[in-house]
Amino acid sequence: MNQTPLILITNDDGIEANGFKALISVAREFGDVVAISSQIPMSGMSHAITIKVPLRVKLVEESPGIKRYLTNGTPVDGVKLAFNSLMERKPDLLISGINHGSNSSSSVLYSGTMAAAMEGAINHIPSVGFSLLDYRPQADFTASGQIARGVIGKVLKEGLPDGICLNVNIPAVKVKEIKGVKICKQANGYWKEEFEKRTDPMGHEYYWLTGFFHNREPDGGGEETDEKALKEHYVSIVPIDTDLTAHHYLQQLKSFELPLG
Amino acid sequence: MNQTPLILITNDDGIEANGFKALISVAREFGDVVAISSQIPMSGMSHAITIKVPLRVKLVEESPGIKRYLTNGTPVDGVKLAFNSLMERKPDLLISGINHGSNSSSSVLYSGTMAAAMEGAINHIPSVGFSLLDYRPQADFTASGQIARGVIGKVLKEGLPDGICLNVNIPAVKVKEIKGVKICKQANGYWKEEFEKRTDPMGHEYYWLTGFFHNREPDGGGEETDEKALKEHYVSIVPIDTDLTAHHYLQQLKSFELPLG
Repeated sequence: MNQTPLILITNDDGIEANGFKALISVAREFGDVVAISSQIPMSGMSHAITIKVPLRVKLVEESPGIKRYLTNGTPVDGVKLAFNSLMERKPDLLISGINHGSNSSSSVLYSGTMAAAMEGAINHIPSVGFSLLDYRPQADFTASGQIARGVIGKVLKEGLPDGICLNVNIPAVKVKEIKGVKICKQANGYWKEEFEKRTDPMGHEYYWLTGFFHNREPDGGGEETDEKALKEHYVSIVPIDTDLTAHHYLQQLKSFELPLG
Repeated sequence: MNQTPLILITNDDGIEANGFKALISVAREFGDVVAISSQIPMSGMSHAITIKVPLRVKLVEESPGIKRYLTNGTPVDGVKLAFNSLMERKPDLLISGINHGSNSSSSVLYSGTMAAAMEGAINHIPSVGFSLLDYRPQADFTASGQIARGVIGKVLKEGLPDGICLNVNIPAVKVKEIKGVKICKQANGYWKEEFEKRTDPMGHEYYWLTGFFHNREPDGGGEETDEKALKEHYVSIVPIDTDLTAHHYLQQLKSFELPLG
C-alpha cells in the first residue's frame, strides 16, 4: 500500500460506547480513521435503512488522522453516508464494533454491527465486525483490542474476497485465558423467545421481548462452530457471505416442478 | 397432513397493503390463516427487532378460519410474537408479502419481507417471501396471486429443508406474458447510493437516501441469476440460507495464521 490506510469505523452501541472507543484507538495505530455512529444505541437494527426520515450528520471531531461523525441513522445508513458523502475516497478497511455482546450463531442476522460489515463487503471493501461476549457498558476491552490489532493488521495486508466479511467474537475472559483463534462456521441455533406480557397504567397490555439462545448443535457438526469455540475460550472467526443463495440446494429445488398457479 | 394447514402471514408494507390482502386471499384456499402486520409500512427494516419499546398487539379480526393482528413491531417482531404468544401451535407454513417492490439480488438483505421468511426458516417452519416488481400501492397482484397459489401448494406438500426459505420475485407483467419460473442464485449487485443533500427551514442540512441498483453480472455467471430471469419475464425463486457462513472460503481462511495481537 503506497498511502496511509484509510479506515472507516462504525458500531451499533452509539458514539459513547467503550467498545467503539477501544476500536478507534487500535485503528489509529494503522492509519487515518473516519468514525461514524449514532448518539443512541442501535442494537438489533440489523440491515435496516432509513427511508422515511431525513438523515442528519454532524462532524463532532476533526483532528489530524481522525474525523468523527454523529448520525441519526442506522449502522448501515452510516456506512452508506460515509462511502458516498463523507469520505474523499473508498476506505481500505471497514471495521465495526467492538460490540457489547455476542454476535455469534444466528445473532449475526439481528446485528447492526455485522450488517455494517456486510454492507462494506457488498461494496467490495474488506470488512470485519468485532464483538465481545460482555454486554455491560463497563466491559473490559483489553483482550478484544489485542485481537482486533491482529485481525486488522492481517486483513489490511491480505485483503478479503469480494462479498465476504469476517464475524469475530471474543470470549469475555482475560487475555492470558484466551486459548487461540478458531476459524468456524456459524452454529445452528436460534433465539427462543419468551415474551413478557404486562399491563400499562392505562390498562393496556404490552410485551417485552426476552428470550434465551438455543444451540441446536452443542457438540458442533463436522466443522467447528463459533459457539463451541467461544465456550472453550477461543476467539471465533466466521467468514460471512453476502450471497445468501443456498447453493447446495439449487439442484434439488430445480426438480420442484412448480405449476404456474 | 391430517389437520387443516395453519398458515402465518406477514408483510412489511402494513396491514392495508393490497399485496398483503392478495396473499391472505390465496392462503385462505389452503387452510386457516393467522395474519400479523403493522399499521404503517416497515420497508427497509431488514431483520430489525424491537428491544427498547414495548410491543403492542391488537386482534382486529376474528372470523372462521382467520385471525388478523396489528402490531407496532417490525416484521420479525410480528413473527416472533405469533410463534410464541399468539398461535396455539406452530404454523405449517409462513408466507410474507406480497411485497410492493423487488427483493431480488442483494435487496434481500434490506428487506423486512424476506427477514420475516428467514425468521421462519431459523425456527424450522417452511417459509416463503413473495415480491412483485411494482412498488405502487395500486399494483396489479393478479399474476402474483397465481404464482403464490402454485408455490404455496407445492411447499405445503413438499416442505423445505430446515434453515432455508424461498425468495420469490414476480415480474410486473400480465399473467400471459410470464414465461415461466426459474430457480436462480442471488445476482451479484448492490445499491449505488446518491444521497440528496438539502437544507431545512432552520438552515440545517439533511440527506435523503436515494440510489439505483447496479448489477455486477448482467449476463449471469454459470448459474442463472434472479435479475436476469426477471428481466426476461420469468418468476425468479432463490433458496435463501440462514447459515451465512462462506463455507467455500473456510479452508483458505484457516491458512490466515492470525497473530494474537
